[in-house]
Amino acid sequence: MRSPPDIIRIALVQMQCEEDPALNLARAEKMITEASKRGAHLIVLPELFKTRYFCQWEDVRHFDLAEPIPGPTIERMQQLARQSNVVLVVPLFERRAAGLYHNSAAIIDANGALVGVYRKMHIPHDPLYYEKYYFTPGDSGFRAWPTQVGKIGVLICWDQWFPEAARLTALRGAEVLVYPTAIGWHPHEKSTWGDAQHKAWEMVQRAHAITNGIFVAAVNRVGHEGPADGGLDFWGASFVCDPFGRILAQASHDREEIVFAALDKSLIETVRRNWPFFRDRRTDAYQELTRRYIGDMP
Amino acid sequence: MRSPPDIIRIALVQMQCEEDPALNLARAEKMITEASKRGAHLIVLPELFKTRYFCQWEDVRHFDLAEPIPGPTIERMQQLARQSNVVLVVPLFERRAAGLYHNSAAIIDANGALVGVYRKMHIPHDPLYYEKYYFTPGDSGFRAWPTQVGKIGVLICWDQWFPEAARLTALRGAEVLVYPTAIGWHPHEKSTWGDAQHKAWEMVQRAHAITNGIFVAAVNRVGHEGPADGGLDFWGASFVCDPFGRILAQASHDREEIVFAALDKSLIETVRRNWPFFRDRRTDAYQELTRRYIGDMP
Repeated sequence: MRSPPDIIRIALVQMQCEEDPALNLARAEKMITEASKRGAHLIVLPELFKTRYFCQWEDVRHFDLAEPIPGPTIERMQQLARQSNVVLVVPLFERRAAGLYHNSAAIIDANGALVGVYRKMHIPHDPLYYEKYYFTPGDSGFRAWPTQVGKIGVLICWDQWFPEAARLTALRGAEVLVYPTAIGWHPHEKSTWGDAQHKAWEMVQRAHAITNGIFVAAVNRVGHEGPADGGLDFWGASFVCDPFGRILAQASHDREEIVFAALDKSLIETVRRNWPFFRDRRTDAYQELTRRYIGDMP
Repeated sequence: MRSPPDIIRIALVQMQCEEDPALNLARAEKMITEASKRGAHLIVLPELFKTRYFCQWEDVRHFDLAEPIPGPTIERMQQLARQSNVVLVVPLFERRAAGLYHNSAAIIDANGALVGVYRKMHIPHDPLYYEKYYFTPGDSGFRAWPTQVGKIGVLICWDQWFPEAARLTALRGAEVLVYPTAIGWHPHEKSTWGDAQHKAWEMVQRAHAITNGIFVAAVNRVGHEGPADGGLDFWGASFVCDPFGRILAQASHDREEIVFAALDKSLIETVRRNWPFFRDRRTDAYQELTRRYIGDMP
């Protein structure tokens, strides 16, 4: 590719994940190839796209699903990135060492180079999201990686809820912040809380776009996984929004699809000039953000 | 009043501000009395409620509008709080010393005690919002004040856009975070940007409620101020939302009115148990939030 284009054509691969990792990989490759043919420069897969969301169960055998980075999957994706001339964000269950596993994402440039690895910093652990059993919290910090389409920030799922993560990624110079995700409803809660949960998820990420003056994209999976009388209904609804928080494109709640959007980077400059939050941050008064709680101080 | 009630009955006084400060004060007192009679425990006035939004002009004579805290207005409000048995948040253009002025808010308990003064930390300075001329950035830090209805966090207007401010206030134990505000449209921009501006403003504050698991309330003024062919159209739309970001009550864009809502504090516990962001914050990885920018680092 050329120097960073003024317009990034992004594609989000909203997919359903099968039991067999080989099928998921093949499907992801097919969808990446399609997105590339339809003009995408930057293509993002959902969190842990190669497997079922195995964190519904705490089972030591699931560690067999992990792979090193680089490793077979990432090397194959590097080849695909080079062939298709696209930047890829590829989430993976990473085996970093014996007994040391991460929920990670590889950032692969359009020439096939592995630019970096983001390791999920905030790890959830709640009913059917038993991630603290599998994943060591990342030590990658919050970063933005230079690629042929521009500086890309990557955070993963639970990170979505932490404004600190979005802010630090933006301060690193990210122009677009992508969130590979696996979030769904508990079927028994869906009628009572489902709408509010989805709305809150979307709203918080759009707020990150606004408060930081950057593009934000979330890529979720779809479909039911787990027992018929329980499990999780992944809610899809992958979307892209601009630095004003306006949604540019959005997927359904229940279908596999590719979400396309054109990100005009000049909007970052325009929005930040008119709402210059970076000018006015009180960097002298934020030290206590590194504290756990201060409400119990005298 | 008694010990902090499980339900806080809040009232937001959305008002129009006249040229004459005495009229604004009288109107605020009348609306506070009405809100109290209708059952409010906590009543919040809009930013700089006693004056026109004079920051549209840089004029040295406007410093005459400032008052000390405590001073005539705050003492009168302390009396009213005691008489009506309500907690009040009273914004004021504060003269702290010769040549030292703040955009402040007094927190007055239901027994009339002056519990604290918040001094706006983030100061804007953009077309028709020339606040850096008048107001020294606050040195109060981000606080939550104990009152007879519970712990109240106070931030002012431009602070709304900074997740750091909301987070630090929540970490101090705030149960409800109130934002006295004076925000409006530039009439010439209204048709192009107006809807997106209002939506972004609302969304960012609802996101603070979600990411911190607290109630949030914004109190704006209404009406046009300034020359007929320019000036600002203050957009009202004062609202209260719950820790899930759901709007409980919301005012019109163009009328004086009092917004009432009942805040059930038990929802804070429920929401935070289900989305335990405070459990998972990476306090070890947030140091660089005190930096201005790090995107130019190697």
